[in-house]
Amino acid sequence: MSANTFGEIFRVTTCGESHGAALGCIIDGCPPLIDLNEQMLQTDLDRRRPGSTRFGTPRNEPDKVKIISGVFEGKTTGTPIGLIIENTSQRSSDYSEIKNSYRPGHADYTYDHKYGIRDYRGGGRASARETAMRVAAGAVAKQVLKQFYNVEISGCVTAIGSIATDKYDAAEALNNAFNFADASKLSMLESFMDDLRMKHDSCGAIVEVRAHNVPVGWGNPVFDRLDATIAHAMMSINAVKGVEIGDGFALAAMLGSKARDEIAPDGFMSNHSGGILGGISSGQEIKVRIALKPTSSIMVPGKSIDRQGNSIDLVTKGRHDPCVGIRAVPIAEAMLALCLIDAALLQRAQCGHITDTAYLVPRN
Amino acid sequence: MSANTFGEIFRVTTCGESHGAALGCIIDGCPPLIDLNEQMLQTDLDRRRPGSTRFGTPRNEPDKVKIISGVFEGKTTGTPIGLIIENTSQRSSDYSEIKNSYRPGHADYTYDHKYGIRDYRGGGRASARETAMRVAAGAVAKQVLKQFYNVEISGCVTAIGSIATDKYDAAEALNNAFNFADASKLSMLESFMDDLRMKHDSCGAIVEVRAHNVPVGWGNPVFDRLDATIAHAMMSINAVKGVEIGDGFALAAMLGSKARDEIAPDGFMSNHSGGILGGISSGQEIKVRIALKPTSSIMVPGKSIDRQGNSIDLVTKGRHDPCVGIRAVPIAEAMLALCLIDAALLQRAQCGHITDTAYLVPRN
Amino acid sequence: MSANTFGEIFRVTTCGESHGAALGCIIDGCPPLIDLNEQMLQTDLDRRRPGSTRFGTPRNEPDKVKIISGVFEGKTTGTPIGLIIENTSQRSSDYSEIKNSYRPGHADYTYDHKYGIRDYRGGGRASARETAMRVAAGAVAKQVLKQFYNVEISGCVTAIGSIATDKYDAAEALNNAFNFADASKLSMLESFMDDLRMKHDSCGAIVEVRAHNVPVGWGNPVFDRLDATIAHAMMSINAVKGVEIGDGFALAAMLGSKARDEIAPDGFMSNHSGGILGGISSGQEIKVRIALKPTSSIMVPGKSIDRQGNSIDLVTKGRHDPCVGIRAVPIAEAMLALCLIDAALLQRAQCGHITDTAYLVPRN
Amino acid sequence: MSANTFGEIFRVTTCGESHGAALGCIIDGCPPLIDLNEQMLQTDLDRRRPGSTRFGTPRNEPDKVKIISGVFEGKTTGTPIGLIIENTSQRSSDYSEIKNSYRPGHADYTYDHKYGIRDYRGGGRASARETAMRVAAGAVAKQVLKQFYNVEISGCVTAIGSIATDKYDAAEALNNAFNFADASKLSMLESFMDDLRMKHDSCGAIVEVRAHNVPVGWGNPVFDRLDATIAHAMMSINAVKGVEIGDGFALAAMLGSKARDEIAPDGFMSNHSGGILGGISSGQEIKVRIALKPTSSIMVPGKSIDRQGNSIDLVTKGRHDPCVGIRAVPIAEAMLALCLIDAALLQRAQCGHITDTAYLVPRN
Repeated sequence: MSANTFGEIFRVTTCGESHGAALGCIIDGCPPLIDLNEQMLQTDLDRRRPGSTRFGTPRNEPDKVKIISGVFEGKTTGTPIGLIIENTSQRSSDYSEIKNSYRPGHADYTYDHKYGIRDYRGGGRASARETAMRVAAGAVAKQVLKQFYNVEISGCVTAIGSIATDKYDAAEALNNAFNFADASKLSMLESFMDDLRMKHDSCGAIVEVRAHNVPVGWGNPVFDRLDATIAHAMMSINAVKGVEIGDGFALAAMLGSKARDEIAPDGFMSNHSGGILGGISSGQEIKVRIALKPTSSIMVPGKSIDRQGNSIDLVTKGRHDPCVGIRAVPIAEAMLALCLIDAALLQRAQCGHITDTAYLVPRN
Repeated sequence: MSANTFGEIFRVTTCGESHGAALGCIIDGCPPLIDLNEQMLQTDLDRRRPGSTRFGTPRNEPDKVKIISGVFEGKTTGTPIGLIIENTSQRSSDYSEIKNSYRPGHADYTYDHKYGIRDYRGGGRASARETAMRVAAGAVAKQVLKQFYNVEISGCVTAIGSIATDKYDAAEALNNAFNFADASKLSMLESFMDDLRMKHDSCGAIVEVRAHNVPVGWGNPVFDRLDATIAHAMMSINAVKGVEIGDGFALAAMLGSKARDEIAPDGFMSNHSGGILGGISSGQEIKVRIALKPTSSIMVPGKSIDRQGNSIDLVTKGRHDPCVGIRAVPIAEAMLALCLIDAALLQRAQCGHITDTAYLVPRN
Repeated sequence: MSANTFGEIFRVTTCGESHGAALGCIIDGCPPLIDLNEQMLQTDLDRRRPGSTRFGTPRNEPDKVKIISGVFEGKTTGTPIGLIIENTSQRSSDYSEIKNSYRPGHADYTYDHKYGIRDYRGGGRASARETAMRVAAGAVAKQVLKQFYNVEISGCVTAIGSIATDKYDAAEALNNAFNFADASKLSMLESFMDDLRMKHDSCGAIVEVRAHNVPVGWGNPVFDRLDATIAHAMMSINAVKGVEIGDGFALAAMLGSKARDEIAPDGFMSNHSGGILGGISSGQEIKVRIALKPTSSIMVPGKSIDRQGNSIDLVTKGRHDPCVGIRAVPIAEAMLALCLIDAALLQRAQCGHITDTAYLVPRN
Repeated sequence: MSANTFGEIFRVTTCGESHGAALGCIIDGCPPLIDLNEQMLQTDLDRRRPGSTRFGTPRNEPDKVKIISGVFEGKTTGTPIGLIIENTSQRSSDYSEIKNSYRPGHADYTYDHKYGIRDYRGGGRASARETAMRVAAGAVAKQVLKQFYNVEISGCVTAIGSIATDKYDAAEALNNAFNFADASKLSMLESFMDDLRMKHDSCGAIVEVRAHNVPVGWGNPVFDRLDATIAHAMMSINAVKGVEIGDGFALAAMLGSKARDEIAPDGFMSNHSGGILGGISSGQEIKVRIALKPTSSIMVPGKSIDRQGNSIDLVTKGRHDPCVGIRAVPIAEAMLALCLIDAALLQRAQCGHITDTAYLVPRN
């Protein structure tokens, strides 16, 4: 119901427009006695923030997050955690000319018809700027996962336009400007992106995220299968139009004798299912792939209409990423973390007496 | 939180194991004065039910649904609609030998570790038998969509194993035993499936569903984008491991100048986005594709372990579909209908004064 | 949102009209490995069911509950528990004359204006018959509370009309026809009730329920304080119009130096707060009092209007309790049990590493 | 689940401790195109804020609210509304001595046992300071109720300690320092309160709130009856321990022939039910009474224990209201407004085609 809330026990609610005063977030249901400080959130925010590479938007936002509640003397208290990120690099004048027109591929048209009003500056609430708070909230979730369960999340870009790789190397991804999984493709990517920028065009991407050390037993049949909530989370990210768990669409063409993951006494012998069986984590690595469409905000003129329905040719100015997928890695990681912590806490509620995954935080 | 409930305003809650006494369902939040009777639900149930074709399981369930509440003199009353489907064709003895072992690719392992107990007969709650109630509830949703908004849902299989088609023909799909979109592939499919059955193996499939006449304005940013709730719904169906909206993964390799759907005064000029922009319906056709993994229950022996962790070779007996995707069409349609009615009713709540999509049902 | 669902983790959803085919219930989120059978539910149902005393309605319903899912070999499995109670003693003809008129004090008027249609037979969904399923679901909750935490719930009537007592004696209440807390008032009550019946009138009542052995730490500030969810639960019972926790309204006239419950090393020195401080259980006995209005269905003629708005004099026939409070004790107990189990399970989720209330159920 | 969220469609989530950086709030689900500005919220905040009268706490907080999102050019946009109130008058040093002890009647004991940690400064999250955001959010709800439905909310204190009145006069209440409904009792109240202050003691109170012009049809049987959600809302306010709808507890001693509200062609002939029948608004005035316990923070020494369990005598310093009920009127009004707007919007969702309560806001 609450379109701006994610999660059931570990609940994240966000607010904020691209060019408003600030972005806000309230995390309700975070367990007490977790070590938490602003720097822990800032690290992931810095991975997402604009302005860090010539392959992204030149908009430069410091994205400094401030914790306003729920943390006392360096530890969570069990009360809601309030977060604020002030908007500082706003150039609303860029957008005045689209006040009365709908950028193709954007939410301008649908917001205007749904709400009868829209904050058109920078895309308002539909801007990917909203995802900064996802990253901050996800960083809190990552801390709980790490401190309670030793679960860690990683991610990398595995395709940019038509340049794709089969590799998954999260360490490498942290080292290059494309967050790309395969160092051998970097020069090819540079040429491709430079060419794209010259043409004022944009491209799509594929991002893969994984969770490590997830114990068996997280996730709930029937409607809230772990893969279903992950699909929900991922498809809620701006520009995402496809989600796969494990081998995903490739499974359609596989035989059952190959696709089922056989089991040996020391564990599963393959992981076509992406670490989830019957909607419940199997103890294997969780693997998720998402497809992001190309940025719609490009300088190539496009056909559209104004609010009165007249045909227009539109050039989208402003400062945009030619490939939104590149900065999407920490966002996808954050959403995966939010799914997992929610499943983990719910597991405690219903089955805490069955699978005794140790809680590591001591009472002070 | 409620893993067995789907929807926020139009809420569907189900219960029932494969070999229990019955399947149950409560639909809460259905608007009053909708024409409704059991036959309306039975039509879709008959499309899903086992036993209708030699390409499916020989298990023959009549799947007769009974409405126990919420309908009075042929109309919904606004109170919760209770549904019951009794289980009749149970052969629990088939399963006694898997009581202490985990079938590879199944939820046996994860259920047992999560809950410490499982109703192993026929897969219990993890059985696809549970989807019968989704189809029944979806049929109610379809009636509301049709009677209020003239929205209709269709679907077809577009790939079985490696045999795929680019066509989408829901009328054709109703005419053949594979619910397949393309009549030119039927003989090829027959050979493939007969061969598969002979090998005691199984295969995956791709199903596409669409919604027609959806008005602009349904769906809610940020976390409950219409595409996100659809992804959730689809990935919650047994065996589904991939979801695409519109062009899905193909968008990753596209340029922005091609992928953005330009707009002319008489409407959108393409539909790469699958009828959803910024998480809100655009008024175009909504297009969803899902990938289903091959049936894990096959007679080809597989490596696994028993509850004590000993290695075993397992042959899954019982009566199973070699391709679960074939009977999945009405299930996917049902889940899409549930997403849309929920979005439609929420739209009334928040924006009923803006987009005035007429309610057609008169007060008696 | 879901008006027919109660609870967040331990979720109870009900359906069913007074004169429909059956009442239904789905309990989602019940922990696995709880011992459970139909007789455990029947005991409480028999305390509520009509027809057991001459001081209640002569309608005689066996109220036999059937478990259709979620229990396997005598234990809960963690999957949703489906319950069915068939309606057997329906005399719908009694109600045909009120089809087009609104009984004063009843929901006829409001249902008709809200929904535009109503199942008028026996009050339909607004009938107290609906509470049978609350009692059944509450009995499941009581089992979890008992088996996990040794928490027990009791209740008694403490006022019928103007005959009230200061005593609380749940054992006595089980022994008399009024479920009354004070044996010294029984003959007075008999005279009063016989007189009331002769006058074809009805009266209100006060019911008190308590929870014993509740540990410290259940309940959640801010909006979901334990007392707030209890107030919600109690006020949702038919005819309830007042709720008090601890000393309730009497606290308004008290001084702070008296009302605050002082603490000694061996525990609290008083319990004016009813066992809840800041919305969280304090480890003391939880005390709740509710006021029920008199039955509106009486044979004394009353002024009302028909559906066309014409003035009428209405005599409510049918078989009704002259004091609905008498049979309300197991209902109030059930609602208290539902509040507590939900709070207990949520406590495990968020603070399972802090207050380690032992889970007693062993893994099999 | 979300203890810090209230509402299902119009959802209010708050955060913030008494002595933290700020209080925060996110309102999700507010309809678009409502006129809204900070001054509309400030008016109610000023009625609640401390420091305005010698009969309240000397703590002086300006309680200036800032809207950070969801409003554009003076109108709501349908996106979440973010609110911030900075804390300015903090004297945390007052509280250092209670760091290791539990004030009797306070949440210190329960918070510490539940969470294992607490922000003890000023009561942290358990402080009534939290209610400032309820008032701000309620002011938004009041605007929607007023602009859409012409519904208005009023309230007054009807008892302070043992000084009570039968009158209800909201206009008078705005004119005196006690928010009291009856001017004839003011001098008596002054003497009483001065005496109380001299004794360093505190007292309880009763507050009554009403809603005017509520149409028939709001509220939802079964568990979410309008009176149930109101009871939930009211009992969630700090210090509230009793709630009555209509005649409340007095109904227990009434006869049915008197208590049922008879109906004439021009409307109901009485309002014992407080404007709610079967959980649905009847079109009459909605009447709610709440009992607040005396402030526990008093200078009279009280018995308690420290964190190690040793007996202590505790004097609660700090700046406290001797009667929290006096400032509770706008809080109770706010909670009633939140209940009503949620019920109204849900009514649109499910029954918008039945009861056509006009939406007055035009599309721009």
